[in-house]
Amino acid sequence: MKRLLLIGIGPGDPRQITIEAVEAMQRASVFFVLEKGAQKHDLLRLRQDMLARYVPQGGYRLVQVADPVRNAAASDYIEGVQAWHQARASLYAKLIATELQDHEIGAFLLWGEPTLYDSTLRILDRVRDLGTALTLEVIPGISSVQALAARHLIALNRIGEPLTVLPGRRLAEQARVDNVVVMLDGAGALEDLHDPDITIYWGAYLGTDDEVLISGALPVVKEQILTLRAQLRQRKGWIMDTFLLRREP
Amino acid sequence: MKRLLLIGIGPGDPRQITIEAVEAMQRASVFFVLEKGAQKHDLLRLRQDMLARYVPQGGYRLVQVADPVRNAAASDYIEGVQAWHQARASLYAKLIATELQDHEIGAFLLWGEPTLYDSTLRILDRVRDLGTALTLEVIPGISSVQALAARHLIALNRIGEPLTVLPGRRLAEQARVDNVVVMLDGAGALEDLHDPDITIYWGAYLGTDDEVLISGALPVVKEQILTLRAQLRQRKGWIMDTFLLRREP
Repeated sequence: MKRLLLIGIGPGDPRQITIEAVEAMQRASVFFVLEKGAQKHDLLRLRQDMLARYVPQGGYRLVQVADPVRNAAASDYIEGVQAWHQARASLYAKLIATELQDHEIGAFLLWGEPTLYDSTLRILDRVRDLGTALTLEVIPGISSVQALAARHLIALNRIGEPLTVLPGRRLAEQARVDNVVVMLDGAGALEDLHDPDITIYWGAYLGTDDEVLISGALPVVKEQILTLRAQLRQRKGWIMDTFLLRREP
Repeated sequence: MKRLLLIGIGPGDPRQITIEAVEAMQRASVFFVLEKGAQKHDLLRLRQDMLARYVPQGGYRLVQVADPVRNAAASDYIEGVQAWHQARASLYAKLIATELQDHEIGAFLLWGEPTLYDSTLRILDRVRDLGTALTLEVIPGISSVQALAARHLIALNRIGEPLTVLPGRRLAEQARVDNVVVMLDGAGALEDLHDPDITIYWGAYLGTDDEVLISGALPVVKEQILTLRAQLRQRKGWIMDTFLLRREP
């Protein structure tokens, strides 16, 4: 039986991490760091800074592996993701077997909230299906959605209204945009949005030194956001942005 | 200009609070505690325990006032809430004027996440409208939604699917229940739910010593949850529960 902690470490600000997460970091002896693409080095450094700050005594091992890349050209989105998850599950199973002893506690340091648009929990379910006995523990973390609302000083929902959180590719099918947070907008859902009655609250690199915030009526600020997003993506090589859309009554 | 911190203190477990929130508690000199009803004493004690733990040096004042009660019999729900918020805004404006000096920092310790189904931010906007100049800062906290998912070891969303969070009274209008979290179910939305293909993940008093969790197919566990919920509400005098509903494909 292998023991693993899925630790939510917040959106980027090392102070936006819970006492429970800090205690979990101190209990773990092996940290698995799987990252891919251009953000790999920046995000590794942020994690190393957090470990240096909260586990100053050291005594842990860092296992770094390049995460498999998803085939974005797959004809069916869900099938493409499923195949990608299976590839990651095989890799994680191998890492857990070779790098984690039975008496040790392993940990994943996960950006934001481990149960919201993060696939690690689902992949570890697949690792179990592959025959590895696991005991899991999830430690919640502050999501970028929460950091976005806090920095803009707004409530996520209006009185009595639902809040919907979704990936950009599911935005177009929303009949009404009352309170919608878009977490991952790789496909340019914002570009395709033309509703003049929407207010947008946008943020990128929330909680980090590079944090940027823009808000306003969509027709007024949309071009400014799109231009800045393109510039930032080019300058840093990657971007993580989130936005709340709200239709004015 | 008065300075106020809205500090998210998580669902109840004193370890589920961020370093940022602890630092904010240490900066504040006046804590406003407004609570009503049967849970008043339990929730006050939990806050006092957190203050004793994280601000052991003391040196702060606790201002306790009974929060106005909402007229649940109001014919229009939104209007009833608006009137209630206005009554609270008048009270808060008076408290801020009399209890907080200009050089001091005031704070509200808010359960869960300050921007999700909490009215304090909205009420302080009304206090501003009443003529009090305020500088606000919001410190995110772990919501009961996150604690629920962590304790059940489930992701809030399935691959690529939206997540909707809503109050119980808005559940009936959901055409499809894919991933829906109900945060406040005073009106008994769960009782009226009869879809046989739904799986429910339910939790009450999350993060506290009284935490209870039940999950399973809705037709199998619904009666058990309703019975337990009624018993617990009677025994403690109040209940805070949350549940995730998911339709199986």
